[in-house]
Amino acid sequence: MKEKTFLMIPGPTPVPQSVLQASARHPIGHRSPEFSQILREVFLDLKEIFQTKNPVFVYAASGTGAMCGALENVLNPGDRVLCLVIGNFGERWVKIAKSRGAMVEVLQADPGEVIHPKDLESMLQKFPDTKAVTLTHSETSTGAANDVKSLCAIIQKSGALAIVDGITSLCAMPCKMDEWGIDILVSGSQKGFMLPPGLAFLSASKKAMEAREKCLYPSFYFDFLAHQKALEKNTTPYTPAVNLVFGLHEALKLLKEEGIEKINARHKRFALSLRQAIRAMGLELFVKEDKNASFAITSILPPSGIDVPSIRRVLKEDFDVLVANGQNALENKIFRIGTLGYVCERDLISAVAALEATLYKLGHSFALGSGVKTLIQNLKNT
Amino acid sequence: MKEKTFLMIPGPTPVPQSVLQASARHPIGHRSPEFSQILREVFLDLKEIFQTKNPVFVYAASGTGAMCGALENVLNPGDRVLCLVIGNFGERWVKIAKSRGAMVEVLQADPGEVIHPKDLESMLQKFPDTKAVTLTHSETSTGAANDVKSLCAIIQKSGALAIVDGITSLCAMPCKMDEWGIDILVSGSQKGFMLPPGLAFLSASKKAMEAREKCLYPSFYFDFLAHQKALEKNTTPYTPAVNLVFGLHEALKLLKEEGIEKINARHKRFALSLRQAIRAMGLELFVKEDKNASFAITSILPPSGIDVPSIRRVLKEDFDVLVANGQNALENKIFRIGTLGYVCERDLISAVAALEATLYKLGHSFALGSGVKTLIQNLKNT
Repeated sequence: MKEKTFLMIPGPTPVPQSVLQASARHPIGHRSPEFSQILREVFLDLKEIFQTKNPVFVYAASGTGAMCGALENVLNPGDRVLCLVIGNFGERWVKIAKSRGAMVEVLQADPGEVIHPKDLESMLQKFPDTKAVTLTHSETSTGAANDVKSLCAIIQKSGALAIVDGITSLCAMPCKMDEWGIDILVSGSQKGFMLPPGLAFLSASKKAMEAREKCLYPSFYFDFLAHQKALEKNTTPYTPAVNLVFGLHEALKLLKEEGIEKINARHKRFALSLRQAIRAMGLELFVKEDKNASFAITSILPPSGIDVPSIRRVLKEDFDVLVANGQNALENKIFRIGTLGYVCERDLISAVAALEATLYKLGHSFALGSGVKTLIQNLKNT
Repeated sequence: MKEKTFLMIPGPTPVPQSVLQASARHPIGHRSPEFSQILREVFLDLKEIFQTKNPVFVYAASGTGAMCGALENVLNPGDRVLCLVIGNFGERWVKIAKSRGAMVEVLQADPGEVIHPKDLESMLQKFPDTKAVTLTHSETSTGAANDVKSLCAIIQKSGALAIVDGITSLCAMPCKMDEWGIDILVSGSQKGFMLPPGLAFLSASKKAMEAREKCLYPSFYFDFLAHQKALEKNTTPYTPAVNLVFGLHEALKLLKEEGIEKINARHKRFALSLRQAIRAMGLELFVKEDKNASFAITSILPPSGIDVPSIRRVLKEDFDVLVANGQNALENKIFRIGTLGYVCERDLISAVAALEATLYKLGHSFALGSGVKTLIQNLKNT
């Protein structure tokens, strides 16, 4: 039943019908007063989600575009950059920084683990000329989440720029740009924002804007200054993705209705309850400790004797639930369940029930019903 | 009647209902076999529109993004670039080239005029170390169109890369990438492709791919190599704008049904007939000679005593037709009517009739009916 496939992956995430409908309107002139009014509201609402007083730029791009924008506005060849890597998306910062000719130092955690504040402190002592530190909040490839608040406090003390990938964390986890001292925060539309992919968001602090002034070859397409100048007039420097912005306008209304605190709490409750349910089914979590777990995505090891492709195939073919495989070295080693964005309790309960049915079909020995039971209990009590 | 507003601007252009509907489907996994199948067909069909054997990359970006991609894959700081400028979008190439530290030479034509092949020859003789020449096919800001075929023949002889902005020309005018020796050709979704904005397209010749190999700081997001590698596996290196790709898939079916030759012919017939109708109403065209005119966009001088804002206001408020103002120095000096993309004869006739009614209301003295009459005659005879 192809049309019924339900996405429990870390993006694209499910999109509300009203958002899809808004994005299917006939386009209007992107320099018209009507469109400027929409952008005005969008720019305002995004600041609430980012928890910042800084402007938030809207790019026609995917999240990687905003990551490029983050580095291509502040780095010059030869600048030292420290990349905190806990998985593939942390590694992406390394590649982008290298593409700009930066001197890249890497502080790496084992897959499933996170960066320890003390290790960051040591690295910054070793390399006091570090201009920028990149970090991933929720690492989609492993399901681990860094303690951004503690790490950014250390980075701020060093004077370096704190550049945070909030692509799958925004909405799913508290991420307080101004309070935590994040200098550049990026995200993407197909995640907690409940939109299809194609928009990326970036907010830059005053310190980051000052670094932009000293950038020799700033990105033209992602240029902070061009976007800031346009934003002040409620427009964009280049043609915006008009229909996706219609969708964003609608999605932000829904997000405001629920409120960022409640949205954060829902994601936490879902992710932690799911983790308990997984344990109850006798499966092992890839991120061992709940305190290191992302609330956007949960990575699970298959039981011995059953392989990941079989689990994903049965889930999709028999139950129309799409979950993600591991990436690169983790391919076929883990599978990942997204609980990000437009996901309700029924979706989560259905997914766990379908996973139970799948494991049962594939011969995993466990107390049938234990997953759903544990999930329901945890959802009630947390 | 806000909902009835009809776009006769150079983009966004009207979008067929079936394309809007396709783009309002629930997103699917962008690494799923179903989505790869869609991309496979899209990549194949785009080559027909670009008239090339080279792969065509699909970016989640607006047209300016692809222009950045074009230069950010081949230029190194200090490289000499010759920019042929006939308006604002030609000027954009200058800005992007400078943002990469290139030495930029400019060959400029007066607004409304085009580049003469002999002037290009002289410039290339003066600067034999020119690495790349940028040119605009259809210059949206003035309505003039360069003779890309002749210009590219000269560029090819010089050994430089011929980099063409086909953003508003593709579909509207013949643009034969391989036959004419275009090394990099870019376009955008919200133009002849009958889609909302948010996708950009780029094709690179073998010579351009070789230049990429020597690029010191290639763009990460728009990287030719990353996109080529992904394309060979019917995927994209970073998350594609899934729903816009659904729309593109549908739009390419419609374009194939009509056929590129017929689509080109329709745009030519519409633009040249419109030009005759404008003359019949006693108005002056900004691009004097038909041989220099774009078939995507027609720029018109207001009659003396009537200003551009009044014409645009009455057209929009009373007749729900949106036409474009001039840009920058041409603001309020000209108005521009787009005949690009999903425009049928009825739309064109309606627009001219509405323009007649507008001019009549505003007191322009002319033979009422002459515009529509001339248009109908020309549409029949051409």
